[in-house]
Amino acid sequence: MTHQDALADIVGKKFAVSGADAANWQKEWTGDYTVDPLVVVRPATTEEVSKIAAYANANDLTVVPVSGNTGLTGATSNQGAVMLSVDRLNTIEQIDTEGRTITVGAGTILQSIHDAVDPHNLIFPLTFGAKGTAMIGGALSTNAGGSNVLRYGNTRDLCLGLEVVLADGHVMNLMSALHKDNSGYNLKHLMIGAEGTLGIITRAVLRLYSKPKAYATAMVATPTVSDALSLLYRMQDATGGAVEAFELMTRSYIDLHLRQVEGAKEPFDTAYDTNIMIEVGATSDEDAAVLDTGQTRIIEKLETILGGMLEEEAVIDAVIAQNEAQRREMWARREAAGHIGYAEGPRVDTDIAVPLDKVGFAIEEIERRYKELDPEAWDIVVAHLGDGNIHHAIYSEIVSKEFFDKCVETVEDVVQEIGGSFSAEHGVGLSKLKTMSRRKDPVALAAMRSIKDSLDPKGTLNPGKVIP
Amino acid sequence: MTHQDALADIVGKKFAVSGADAANWQKEWTGDYTVDPLVVVRPATTEEVSKIAAYANANDLTVVPVSGNTGLTGATSNQGAVMLSVDRLNTIEQIDTEGRTITVGAGTILQSIHDAVDPHNLIFPLTFGAKGTAMIGGALSTNAGGSNVLRYGNTRDLCLGLEVVLADGHVMNLMSALHKDNSGYNLKHLMIGAEGTLGIITRAVLRLYSKPKAYATAMVATPTVSDALSLLYRMQDATGGAVEAFELMTRSYIDLHLRQVEGAKEPFDTAYDTNIMIEVGATSDEDAAVLDTGQTRIIEKLETILGGMLEEEAVIDAVIAQNEAQRREMWARREAAGHIGYAEGPRVDTDIAVPLDKVGFAIEEIERRYKELDPEAWDIVVAHLGDGNIHHAIYSEIVSKEFFDKCVETVEDVVQEIGGSFSAEHGVGLSKLKTMSRRKDPVALAAMRSIKDSLDPKGTLNPGKVIP
Repeated sequence: MTHQDALADIVGKKFAVSGADAANWQKEWTGDYTVDPLVVVRPATTEEVSKIAAYANANDLTVVPVSGNTGLTGATSNQGAVMLSVDRLNTIEQIDTEGRTITVGAGTILQSIHDAVDPHNLIFPLTFGAKGTAMIGGALSTNAGGSNVLRYGNTRDLCLGLEVVLADGHVMNLMSALHKDNSGYNLKHLMIGAEGTLGIITRAVLRLYSKPKAYATAMVATPTVSDALSLLYRMQDATGGAVEAFELMTRSYIDLHLRQVEGAKEPFDTAYDTNIMIEVGATSDEDAAVLDTGQTRIIEKLETILGGMLEEEAVIDAVIAQNEAQRREMWARREAAGHIGYAEGPRVDTDIAVPLDKVGFAIEEIERRYKELDPEAWDIVVAHLGDGNIHHAIYSEIVSKEFFDKCVETVEDVVQEIGGSFSAEHGVGLSKLKTMSRRKDPVALAAMRSIKDSLDPKGTLNPGKVIP
Repeated sequence: MTHQDALADIVGKKFAVSGADAANWQKEWTGDYTVDPLVVVRPATTEEVSKIAAYANANDLTVVPVSGNTGLTGATSNQGAVMLSVDRLNTIEQIDTEGRTITVGAGTILQSIHDAVDPHNLIFPLTFGAKGTAMIGGALSTNAGGSNVLRYGNTRDLCLGLEVVLADGHVMNLMSALHKDNSGYNLKHLMIGAEGTLGIITRAVLRLYSKPKAYATAMVATPTVSDALSLLYRMQDATGGAVEAFELMTRSYIDLHLRQVEGAKEPFDTAYDTNIMIEVGATSDEDAAVLDTGQTRIIEKLETILGGMLEEEAVIDAVIAQNEAQRREMWARREAAGHIGYAEGPRVDTDIAVPLDKVGFAIEEIERRYKELDPEAWDIVVAHLGDGNIHHAIYSEIVSKEFFDKCVETVEDVVQEIGGSFSAEHGVGLSKLKTMSRRKDPVALAAMRSIKDSLDPKGTLNPGKVIP
């Protein structure tokens, strides 16, 4: 019996495929990684996942969990592996409106979670460009960030409980819906962000929040990034921390967007260098109330602060979304980043985090240094400015591995010098393995290796990822 | 050369003591655990901690880290061990007011952190009764909770970076001040709450928050716990989540407080069963503004909601603190819980968490069942109601180990039946080891054992704790 037949016995013939039938899983979304899986197997229950893991472990087969396939680091790329797709584990099991949790299978698409809780006036805050395809299992495995981290935290902060199948097929039940639980080591946080190398996430209990009753969304141009930060702090203080998104887009990013997207518009009448998208969510009736002016109170608060900053010349220009269509247009400009960045061609792509007050310096210093390598090179930058997280891409006519590697080193040097991280929210996968070797604390790396060896002694779970 | 001499060579003779000189470390605060340490050693630097760990590891000596000695579970109790007190690692290294972080040594007392950031109009939100003695190292090692978890999270949520000395003396540098960092397994969260069994925390980067400009603090009596929850949700919605504390005290707790504390007062003119302390913190100028009525806006918001609920008979009585002295009195009543509970004599003490909407049921059902064991037994309950965390104590004339064990089982049965945890915020230590065996998912327990063995193969770090 072939391995494919044995796995088909667990999940059914239709759900254990290879060759042309597995075409969907042969390429990561980025196109940077292409593989030919041994079998793609699509279990429908935790029990099936357990059996697959146990079979693979007993037969020394590599198992690579995959969900929406929207990762950016090659974390699901393994030649000749059993690819375990969680897409059929997509049941929304329970929505607890009083306890404000939702229990879902790992294959549930982010957008489906959003849609499911919306009628209850609740939100699951995790959101990013790929939300219509990405599944919660992958988001948990990479501890994805996105545009609302500022207010609600990373994916790990939104997860109360997990179910995980370990390398040998044992099912670990951490499915708590509790806000406090100190019963031993925090295995939940260990599994989140481990990119499928320590276990296969099969189910999760997620936190829900009050749906904002009104939004104030605006594009703001500031003289400097530092002025933008000042706007962030003022708005945070005025609203008690209700700023949900605070996104920086550089001039070159806006230009790229105009070039690539049909119907795209300049955010302002004039072209500015530092373009900020701010969104504030009002959960109180008071802030959502429409005043005599016809505006909501939350918009008036934003207007007041922007008005003051315009006078101080700390803001150059501002446009507040007057309706949902204008708000969507602002979001669409920001969310296009993943697609248009790739479409522009080969680039040196980094996902870095620096202390908040160092974002402006980092962008300038990185430019200064890569221009030394190629004066014709240029970059686009979109940043979750409120989290210090910069998505940086350098384009150059010199498309050589050697030059690209040098650019990456250059970016990472700057980041390390100012106490930042080379991996903010996309994970390590394959693409940042070398950087892990060079930049990560060696004692921490050794500890990771020990943990990997202890939980997966045969090394069958997504080998060669995360740990160099 | 004795071990004490060898350790004295590392830290100086004065800081490696035993016998009578080590009296301060022979007893845990609870008095439940008494030990005679081999040596108490008090390093002043990370390097010294590293040398101590390496020496102990090479000589198969047990090392037990200890900080403020205010733990409640016997987690620092080991006969004949090297007790490594972090009290001299008490430097406040840096306060970054723009990035809103503070970098401290593990021996820094909680109150010292509060005092250090106060002049900057910032707060470190972690607070509990023992804050004048407890040190941050211990708070991190137990992932302590406290009274502000509702708004700011547990200790782990307040920590951005850690430095940890591993069993063999290697220093692991996780000292990041970043809000996003996905560079491999989350070792920070693994070390937090591990009670010193995986490493010795030596330094930490902690998050700071805006200091509220005004508070609204009140005692509220409600007909039921469910009505109290309704108050919580309404106030959360009205303030966008600014409720900082929401504490339940039962009638019997109030009575005990009146009996034990000189000058203690009833919270209301009448004695009620369900007594809630609520505190809301206003960070905006708007909410902190004093209105024509002479009250701050935040107090008016609370009054409006309480007024409506009084009319609906969902609130029976309410007293709002009119000044800081009245506010302190309300806090003192709540914070006395640790002391007066112990002073009353032997008791069956549990630290449990249940889903928010099950708190009322849990309290009633536990009472029903222990009364079957001893109809004369009685309890006191204080709960962080907003977190579903109940501190439950049963007193009985039957002071036998057998009876106490039965009561613990009874409490834990109820908790497990409704999806709760037997260990909310005090940790496991020695006192909940048996419960870990009985109640924790066996696959998770096995994973913990593997991790412990991989990071501390000789088992010298605080052995016999957390994992049965």
